[in-house]
Amino acid sequence: MSDATLENDVIEPPCSKKIKIEEQNENGVSNVQLELKDFVPVKVLNNNTNRKTVCIQGTFRDKSGVALVLLEKNAFKGEELDDKGYFAIDTKLRTFFQNDIYGNFECYPRSEINGVKTTIIYPATEKHIAKFSQQEVHIILETPELYRKLTLPYIEKEQFNLQWVYNILEGRSEQDRIVYDNKCEREGFVLVPDLKWDGITKETLYLLAIVRQRGIKSLRDLNESHLPLLKRVRDEGKKAIYSKYKVCGSQLRVYLHYQPSFYHLHIHFTYLKHEAPGIHAERSHLLDAVIDNLTMSGHHYQLASLPFTVREMDPLFSSYESDGHVARVNQPDK
Amino acid sequence: MSDATLENDVIEPPCSKKIKIEEQNENGVSNVQLELKDFVPVKVLNNNTNRKTVCIQGTFRDKSGVALVLLEKNAFKGEELDDKGYFAIDTKLRTFFQNDIYGNFECYPRSEINGVKTTIIYPATEKHIAKFSQQEVHIILETPELYRKLTLPYIEKEQFNLQWVYNILEGRSEQDRIVYDNKCEREGFVLVPDLKWDGITKETLYLLAIVRQRGIKSLRDLNESHLPLLKRVRDEGKKAIYSKYKVCGSQLRVYLHYQPSFYHLHIHFTYLKHEAPGIHAERSHLLDAVIDNLTMSGHHYQLASLPFTVREMDPLFSSYESDGHVARVNQPDK
Repeated sequence: MSDATLENDVIEPPCSKKIKIEEQNENGVSNVQLELKDFVPVKVLNNNTNRKTVCIQGTFRDKSGVALVLLEKNAFKGEELDDKGYFAIDTKLRTFFQNDIYGNFECYPRSEINGVKTTIIYPATEKHIAKFSQQEVHIILETPELYRKLTLPYIEKEQFNLQWVYNILEGRSEQDRIVYDNKCEREGFVLVPDLKWDGITKETLYLLAIVRQRGIKSLRDLNESHLPLLKRVRDEGKKAIYSKYKVCGSQLRVYLHYQPSFYHLHIHFTYLKHEAPGIHAERSHLLDAVIDNLTMSGHHYQLASLPFTVREMDPLFSSYESDGHVARVNQPDK
Repeated sequence: MSDATLENDVIEPPCSKKIKIEEQNENGVSNVQLELKDFVPVKVLNNNTNRKTVCIQGTFRDKSGVALVLLEKNAFKGEELDDKGYFAIDTKLRTFFQNDIYGNFECYPRSEINGVKTTIIYPATEKHIAKFSQQEVHIILETPELYRKLTLPYIEKEQFNLQWVYNILEGRSEQDRIVYDNKCEREGFVLVPDLKWDGITKETLYLLAIVRQRGIKSLRDLNESHLPLLKRVRDEGKKAIYSKYKVCGSQLRVYLHYQPSFYHLHIHFTYLKHEAPGIHAERSHLLDAVIDNLTMSGHHYQLASLPFTVREMDPLFSSYESDGHVARVNQPDK
């Protein structure tokens, strides 16, 4: 999956998932036997050459409606790397060049050991197409004035539903998933595996700390009065993760997103070796740096200009565009 | 290639490259016909499940010396995505499950269209093995005191050779590669394509701005007096990149590394859509944020605690380890 895709998958309420499926049921689809040979590709929506994923829009022969095919090259598995797998006698090798001790080749293992993860969405809605389409992304530098003038009204207008967060905090859902719980209303938090993580594989460790205190929308709202809360999340979060998953604190990336995907303060914990989506400098702020900035200046995040990335299809982009702070790609006025 | 590998490749003096090759020639190797079926794997040094790369250490049957085999799944090519490629009749499809409109499968295209980039290094030196080995990485929070006590002595002791930088600035080398040149000794800089970039493919755009002013080792040395220089790099750099490559400023990620790979101030420009190595929050600082911090507090970077990542094999790690600020993985005292 591309970053964009994963970004859209950040924690989603079970309820909204259910609703989504029900909507999709209204397409009136029962299980149909799909065959790749019947797929007629129309357009490549997204091709991530780093992660080796691609999403293709098309149709199925003799079937109505749009279909999406997502392909992802599989990661290498240890058991394939032997004389029955990649180093078997039937692996073909094409030589590009050999120079001194370096040789460049392309090898062709037999197809059974070189599978490609394949996801088919059929019929796909406009929402699916938008979600999997490569988006033009821009960086915007949000001054405190622009936050008040454009971002804050957007947050208030969009009225993000936080009920699912409160359900977790009040013990109404996902209780079996909770890794650590500090029930203090002011400085407490709940630590849960992120939905993108299987909860087992150390290499891809990803947890979320959701604070109990309500009304802290994002980094922008943080001031020195939140330092005890933030330090508690950092210290108790690291301790809980070490005792349960044996990953030490110095190997954890602990950070906040700006803009966040939902406006109730939460902190991400990922394994340093894992290239999780959304860890890039334009979106992530290390908790240690946040604590340091607030210690030096209690109102740092009310005074600072904060960069954030936004896709052209997002409503927030339109607000900044119509106010003249960013222009779409392929516009003369750039 | 894994991030670790690419990180090691950040601009390297032509001279040192040459020396390296000469060292390797001393292994006295002429071109030998290598066959994957003769490769005897001993150890997986590195397996990047995001980028689908793996590096295996082993030997070749009836040959002496260590060999490294690097495998990388190829990214998808547009021309493969048709009824002669992935959607051909001979592509096998295995069904995992189908749920409503979502179906999960694994497909097995015929091997010719599913090649694997293969690099063989034989014989490989200890340096190669270290370079391609997955390293245990840690985050260290560097206070101003720790910078003076441990990091600065390390920088001074290592005596990084900057001659190749001065060669570029003084027009003795890479002049054909220069994209933009502002000759002001105090606020000028040279803009060159990064060695990791082919200089053509817009999707992977990556340039470096190297400032003319000497003696600015890193982010740590920056203060308000450098604001005119930094703003000039940002504004003139974006302008030069737009006029030459037609990538607009709002789609550029402009940032500094801490720790940098060499201690002469340089600023990275990458295309926002490109997941370049080293853009993660634990290493990269957006130039806009740096300028904003210096505007709010002229000595921000002399007062701030700065996180940086370090691998257990690096000498800097040892300094912090022996001073008790970080511990190796698999040590009791964690």
